[in-house]
Amino acid sequence: MDSKKIQNVFFISDSTGITIESLGHSLFTQFPDITFEKKVFPFVTKKENAEKAISHIKKVATNSQNTPIVFTSLADEDLKNLFAANDISIFDIFSSFIPEMESHLKTQASHAIGETHGVGNTSDYLQRIDALNFALSHDDGMKLDTIEHADIILTGVSRSGKTPTCLYLAMHYNLKTANYPLTDSDFENSYLPETLRASQDQIFGLTISPTQLCKIRTERKPNSKYASFEQCEFEIKKAESIYKNSKLPFIDTSSVSIEEIATTIIQRLNLKPQGKW
Amino acid sequence: MDSKKIQNVFFISDSTGITIESLGHSLFTQFPDITFEKKVFPFVTKKENAEKAISHIKKVATNSQNTPIVFTSLADEDLKNLFAANDISIFDIFSSFIPEMESHLKTQASHAIGETHGVGNTSDYLQRIDALNFALSHDDGMKLDTIEHADIILTGVSRSGKTPTCLYLAMHYNLKTANYPLTDSDFENSYLPETLRASQDQIFGLTISPTQLCKIRTERKPNSKYASFEQCEFEIKKAESIYKNSKLPFIDTSSVSIEEIATTIIQRLNLKPQGKW
Repeated sequence: MDSKKIQNVFFISDSTGITIESLGHSLFTQFPDITFEKKVFPFVTKKENAEKAISHIKKVATNSQNTPIVFTSLADEDLKNLFAANDISIFDIFSSFIPEMESHLKTQASHAIGETHGVGNTSDYLQRIDALNFALSHDDGMKLDTIEHADIILTGVSRSGKTPTCLYLAMHYNLKTANYPLTDSDFENSYLPETLRASQDQIFGLTISPTQLCKIRTERKPNSKYASFEQCEFEIKKAESIYKNSKLPFIDTSSVSIEEIATTIIQRLNLKPQGKW
Repeated sequence: MDSKKIQNVFFISDSTGITIESLGHSLFTQFPDITFEKKVFPFVTKKENAEKAISHIKKVATNSQNTPIVFTSLADEDLKNLFAANDISIFDIFSSFIPEMESHLKTQASHAIGETHGVGNTSDYLQRIDALNFALSHDDGMKLDTIEHADIILTGVSRSGKTPTCLYLAMHYNLKTANYPLTDSDFENSYLPETLRASQDQIFGLTISPTQLCKIRTERKPNSKYASFEQCEFEIKKAESIYKNSKLPFIDTSSVSIEEIATTIIQRLNLKPQGKW
């Protein structure tokens, strides 16, 4: 039986609410004994939106043992005050940081509605779309003839995390990413193929524990040679020896998230990402 | 000539730094007259990492007119104190929120190192990978025979933003997404194809201004019929009439970001996303 205390949390944003929800999630990990029930109210830009949120929160408050927590990132003071006027206790990211920033920066904040995840400038947006298209067209060893234009080339055995990481790097950092799967023909040579050697500085290897790989492959093709522990162990051993022979940086993806893999790669390759996402 | 004031900002995190950088970006949009030069120090979990960051920040401080701003999200008090002891002024997300949260929740924060973008539980991770694989295999009208398993099916003309939005929804919310491109055969009928009608409730239309579409398509295939204003205008008109005939919700993607499109779709379809990213 789950006897964890339940705490309702609401996120009120005049934009997507993605930043504030992520901040909330980060803070909640500090309270592992509490289950947080979350609801986001995005695009709260008018009085009607705020009133709808307030009425919902009040209803939840009446039916729960604990007073709900409300996180806001509203730039408009009048909208924010609607919540304050309703006896709702608020954790506000603007009032927590903006006054001190204003004094540090010796200038006034604009209090204009959030543009954090707005489209901003079109060239940035097109760069992002280009990066995604590049990642999709250079997935899984496709289009090796243009792979030298990649900012990052991931390599590794099947199901070691190459595609999700490439997509994340493209989506979040506008980086052109490609990936090259290590297969039997590469294992025979114990080296990366000739076509990739010109791009040596962009290449990053992924490895994974045989147990984890076996689990992931089994989900996909149960009882196959492909998913067997022996095959997984053999491929990983070969892949790691290629990384060592070619002096490639590599990371074990067994127990890290896509975000952690991406951050590590950017740090190790000393890249300066362009995105603002 | 760009005469904007330049302000150096550093983000110090014991994890990826993604949350705190996103928070910083959100705050910086309130100061449009300042150019923020950002650098992230992720995975600051040991004294050595902190000292390296401090030494870099001090060097930048000596060479710049404005005192750098440092944002931290370090759970470990000793590490955080290293920064304080070095005359570096800190905006700390933990001390801004945790004490008040502790008093509201009537419990102590764990002060354990951040798990925000850690792999957390494996089932959540596998769900995310499944969602991404579903999105990739159901891109651009592929695998219509299993499209009914999608949580969301996006439709729209070529280059209206379907694929990036699908990938974003899968990556961030673990949602199984598919997309179906509207082409000539659909325009002849003025209705969605038979195969999609069973999934009516999951379908969301994307539209875009002819000018914006023409611009995007011209980047891809300059001087083609495909990229001409007339063709773009014709296709969009037809697509919108299909949405109206089929009573589909739809959104204009011309000047909104992928995040805003995704948030709007989740809100309009009343979905409860599973992810924690």
